[in-house]
Amino acid sequence: MSGPFESYPVSLVHRLIEPGPTLMITTAGGEWPTVMTNGFSMPVRHDGTLAVVIGPWDATYGALHRSRECVIAIPGLDLLETTVDVGNCSSADTDKWEQFGLTPLPASSVQAPLIAECTANIECAVVDDTLVESYDLWILRARAAWHLPETGAVEFHHRGNGTFSETGTVHDLRHRMTKWPHLT
Amino acid sequence: MSGPFESYPVSLVHRLIEPGPTLMITTAGGEWPTVMTNGFSMPVRHDGTLAVVIGPWDATYGALHRSRECVIAIPGLDLLETTVDVGNCSSADTDKWEQFGLTPLPASSVQAPLIAECTANIECAVVDDTLVESYDLWILRARAAWHLPETGAVEFHHRGNGTFSETGTVHDLRHRMTKWPHLT
Repeated sequence: MSGPFESYPVSLVHRLIEPGPTLMITTAGGEWPTVMTNGFSMPVRHDGTLAVVIGPWDATYGALHRSRECVIAIPGLDLLETTVDVGNCSSADTDKWEQFGLTPLPASSVQAPLIAECTANIECAVVDDTLVESYDLWILRARAAWHLPETGAVEFHHRGNGTFSETGTVHDLRHRMTKWPHLT
Repeated sequence: MSGPFESYPVSLVHRLIEPGPTLMITTAGGEWPTVMTNGFSMPVRHDGTLAVVIGPWDATYGALHRSRECVIAIPGLDLLETTVDVGNCSSADTDKWEQFGLTPLPASSVQAPLIAECTANIECAVVDDTLVESYDLWILRARAAWHLPETGAVEFHHRGNGTFSETGTVHDLRHRMTKWPHLT
């Protein structure tokens, strides 16, 4: 347990990221922990390996270079406006936790905080920065993850232009996953 | 024009990918063009640079190594079952175009075909394969893109376990994008 959260298997965190939700990302260090909004992410392997794009225009970039750790948090639809606003100011000059009423919770394996108001949190370490200089692309590995089971929370997806689509009807095609039954 | 499609700006293809839709990817070469289903992708820059994970377990992997080109196609909800089935057999032994009634259309800048039944197609070149050996992660750059404007087509998102969520209600928060007005 961490705050309201239950443990979530690291080997299944791809399920949190693969639908393409808008994310918030926290790091430790500085006057307050940084928190940013991110729409450029993907799973890389079915073992907790993830990729995110975080560039020098983000205060998170320097903190990630120094600390080599972050938390990826998944906001539900109730945080839509907050998530957009978090993405339109900078942790360099704003304590976003105070400004937006977000609550940092201690993580289990990294210094970066969980976000209590999100539906899931993934504690991550940087495992490869080969493409950071050329593409601002960081390879992360989940160390631990947390979620609120059974909330029915709906995530949302940035459409790249300031509009956001919430998750709609879910279709169960697990019976057609004949080549990949181990994923279902 | 290419078949039913109108040209779409390469500089805006992040809008097609950022919501996290399930993709189909084609390559040229072999007995027939390969076509696969993919859920691990993201935009990397707001200039047509994208990332996808395609591994040696995919027939596409060898074709991509040889041809250095592919087409990323975005299926609408009418292709949900087809897209899942495309992902559960192999182009190594199956002509999926024939089997699933998909229509290849000539692209303008690559040998790989567009998929006529999809709502958008992005013609891509491999621009960086540094992380292919370690993470099967390919950096692509869009050369041209095509879409069906004004169809209201709805994409869908793999939830990582054989269930898929369609795009739901869209929320317009462009007025809150005060730091990133150029994206709206």
